[in-house]
Amino acid sequence: MALIVQKFGGSSVADADKVRNVARIVTETYRKGHSVVVVLSAQGDTTDELIEKARELNPKASKREMDMLLATGEQISIALCAMAIERMGYQAISLTGWQAGMLTDSAYSAARIKRIHTERIRKELDKRKIVLVAGFQGINKYDDVTTLGRGGSDTSAVALAASLHADLCQIYTDVDGVYTADPRHVTGARKIDEITFDEMLELASLGAQVLHNRSVEMAKRYGVNMEVLSSFSGHMGTKVKEVVKTMEKNHVSGIAKDKNVARLALVGLADQPGIAFKIFSLLARKDINVDIILQSIGRNESKDISFTVARGDGPEAKRILEEHQQSIGFQSVELNEEVAKVSIVGAGMVNNAGVACKMFEALFSAGININMISTSEIKVSVLVDERDADRAVQAIHDRFFNEFGSN
Amino acid sequence: MALIVQKFGGSSVADADKVRNVARIVTETYRKGHSVVVVLSAQGDTTDELIEKARELNPKASKREMDMLLATGEQISIALCAMAIERMGYQAISLTGWQAGMLTDSAYSAARIKRIHTERIRKELDKRKIVLVAGFQGINKYDDVTTLGRGGSDTSAVALAASLHADLCQIYTDVDGVYTADPRHVTGARKIDEITFDEMLELASLGAQVLHNRSVEMAKRYGVNMEVLSSFSGHMGTKVKEVVKTMEKNHVSGIAKDKNVARLALVGLADQPGIAFKIFSLLARKDINVDIILQSIGRNESKDISFTVARGDGPEAKRILEEHQQSIGFQSVELNEEVAKVSIVGAGMVNNAGVACKMFEALFSAGININMISTSEIKVSVLVDERDADRAVQAIHDRFFNEFGSN
Repeated sequence: MALIVQKFGGSSVADADKVRNVARIVTETYRKGHSVVVVLSAQGDTTDELIEKARELNPKASKREMDMLLATGEQISIALCAMAIERMGYQAISLTGWQAGMLTDSAYSAARIKRIHTERIRKELDKRKIVLVAGFQGINKYDDVTTLGRGGSDTSAVALAASLHADLCQIYTDVDGVYTADPRHVTGARKIDEITFDEMLELASLGAQVLHNRSVEMAKRYGVNMEVLSSFSGHMGTKVKEVVKTMEKNHVSGIAKDKNVARLALVGLADQPGIAFKIFSLLARKDINVDIILQSIGRNESKDISFTVARGDGPEAKRILEEHQQSIGFQSVELNEEVAKVSIVGAGMVNNAGVACKMFEALFSAGININMISTSEIKVSVLVDERDADRAVQAIHDRFFNEFGSN
Repeated sequence: MALIVQKFGGSSVADADKVRNVARIVTETYRKGHSVVVVLSAQGDTTDELIEKARELNPKASKREMDMLLATGEQISIALCAMAIERMGYQAISLTGWQAGMLTDSAYSAARIKRIHTERIRKELDKRKIVLVAGFQGINKYDDVTTLGRGGSDTSAVALAASLHADLCQIYTDVDGVYTADPRHVTGARKIDEITFDEMLELASLGAQVLHNRSVEMAKRYGVNMEVLSSFSGHMGTKVKEVVKTMEKNHVSGIAKDKNVARLALVGLADQPGIAFKIFSLLARKDINVDIILQSIGRNESKDISFTVARGDGPEAKRILEEHQQSIGFQSVELNEEVAKVSIVGAGMVNNAGVACKMFEALFSAGININMISTSEIKVSVLVDERDADRAVQAIHDRFFNEFGSN
């Protein structure tokens, strides 16, 4: 008899039929004798509709009031789902973020969970009730409602699973699990049965979009066993855990594409120490994160530095650098917004030097030019022109997954 | 510099323009130097839409979950209105029922306010913020969300005004105030400038529908000065207070009609003591309230009793009586659902025996038959056929208000 946290996203509770479907999944788990805590997002477009109402009245509404407004979306979901479960003859109780003891800091619209007072949830579980908790929301030390921002409901679910020492945290979504590449774009993409936290982190941050990084990081830190699965298909999903027990033949678990990238190139920098520090601290002060960095080897007392940022930050990064052209000392700065990052991820990679080589070979065979390269213990990323990105993913995927035993 | 509570109903916050209008009224009051606490209902049809969503999933949803669901409506209103006020350059803060310290009993969907912990509201007022409180809702001792049921937001406003010792509680609605009769149906109906709590209570319970009785009772008990006024017209409203200071010429302050009435007649009862007690305790046990009671004088050791109940209770009352026909001992029971109650209300009535007489005369002149009569210190009610009700109100109104100095 396990304690299981099940999280359902907005598309899984979008209308009455879908809410009934969630109630079916939840009660099936409960009927097997498990204790069940359910975390829900707001229904379908509710959040967008609320944001539109707010925008109409005040495009610069305070974040505190936005959180107050948006938190109603999840509250509606949990109450409706509790009713659907009651209808099926089971006892359910819905709890808002504050009722569930979800304490956060005071960063409205992007709050971090500080701790969870689980007494209330435990009390209701002890009464054999199915407990439904509003995701995405909490309460700060002033007793004000906060929301967790991006990936908030996944994070609520993992945090609850950690606090309650749950045996499993199931993230129900509209896809069957984590794939070796985006199945909507890549022929032959296959579902991964098991994946490590680290691999999932790389895949998520590289644009796989199934799980938000924040929730995976938290799951890794607290050792929460996660599973990503579909609320519609009933198929087995993908398990995310610290160590993957099954022997996996592949060194590469997945391939990801990220178009939210822009490249900046600083040309003609003086070849002296401290310049890189100056550049990146200027950007850090404006909260602009830098990803891949490439520095040319100095020649003739001059060098170039290029790096990538999130595409939305590109123009501002360029402006900041231009403002400081004199103090940094460079000839010109170029912004290229038509690039994409393609990455292969796999825990087995570090021990297999041939993996990167195979990736480059696949790209070469497809006639795709590589702009930049970045590697870590479990991934290799390349920057390519955006128009080549989909072809690049397919070529790499074919090379690693679709040739007989070649990996 | 006064402390003023302003309450706005659902039609006053139905869309963005109306929310902006509320923000204007509130900030105008604030600009005069007053402290302002605003109580809001859910926007327009929000509550009905939420009820429909619930009904689709579970027509017999638990009241606890219904309250959880419905409480989101007012939370949306206060957040949006706070944003509109911020937009105008003023500081505002929205508070849900629990944040405002609104403690209730645990009667979900019809909770009673037990006390209000006003610390948070006072703290925000001290910071010179405009405080917006979600009406209709509170929290019980289990930390669960409750709603106050019918007339809930008016009650929230009056309870806050009482707890905060506010100087005035303004109830903004879509009519200009309390009228001598329903202005939509009665020609010549006039707005009343001032009215006593007792008169207002009689008018409200008789179907005037401007203020809910519960809020007026509470205002009377705690001596809260109320004012009913329109959020659209900008006209002076009606003041409701303990003692009306202006000399009023009229003994009658208003005329009300109530169609939510059914009459039951028990024919052929034995003329012996204890029978009335037996009948009405049977009904009381099923929470059926009885209003006007008429007992015929016993003749030939047999008598009749007729009485009125809320129309929705009529069939059940009949069923209960029929079930007990033998133990009560009567020949037949008749249910008439096509009746209406018409009443005149006025604090001056008790000292003026001619008032009731004048009412009966007006009905006689209009050829309207009176089924039952009931009087109290400040009102006279008659039961008439429903088809005569509107004509009855008009005839009485003409007699008391539209004839030269005849009252």
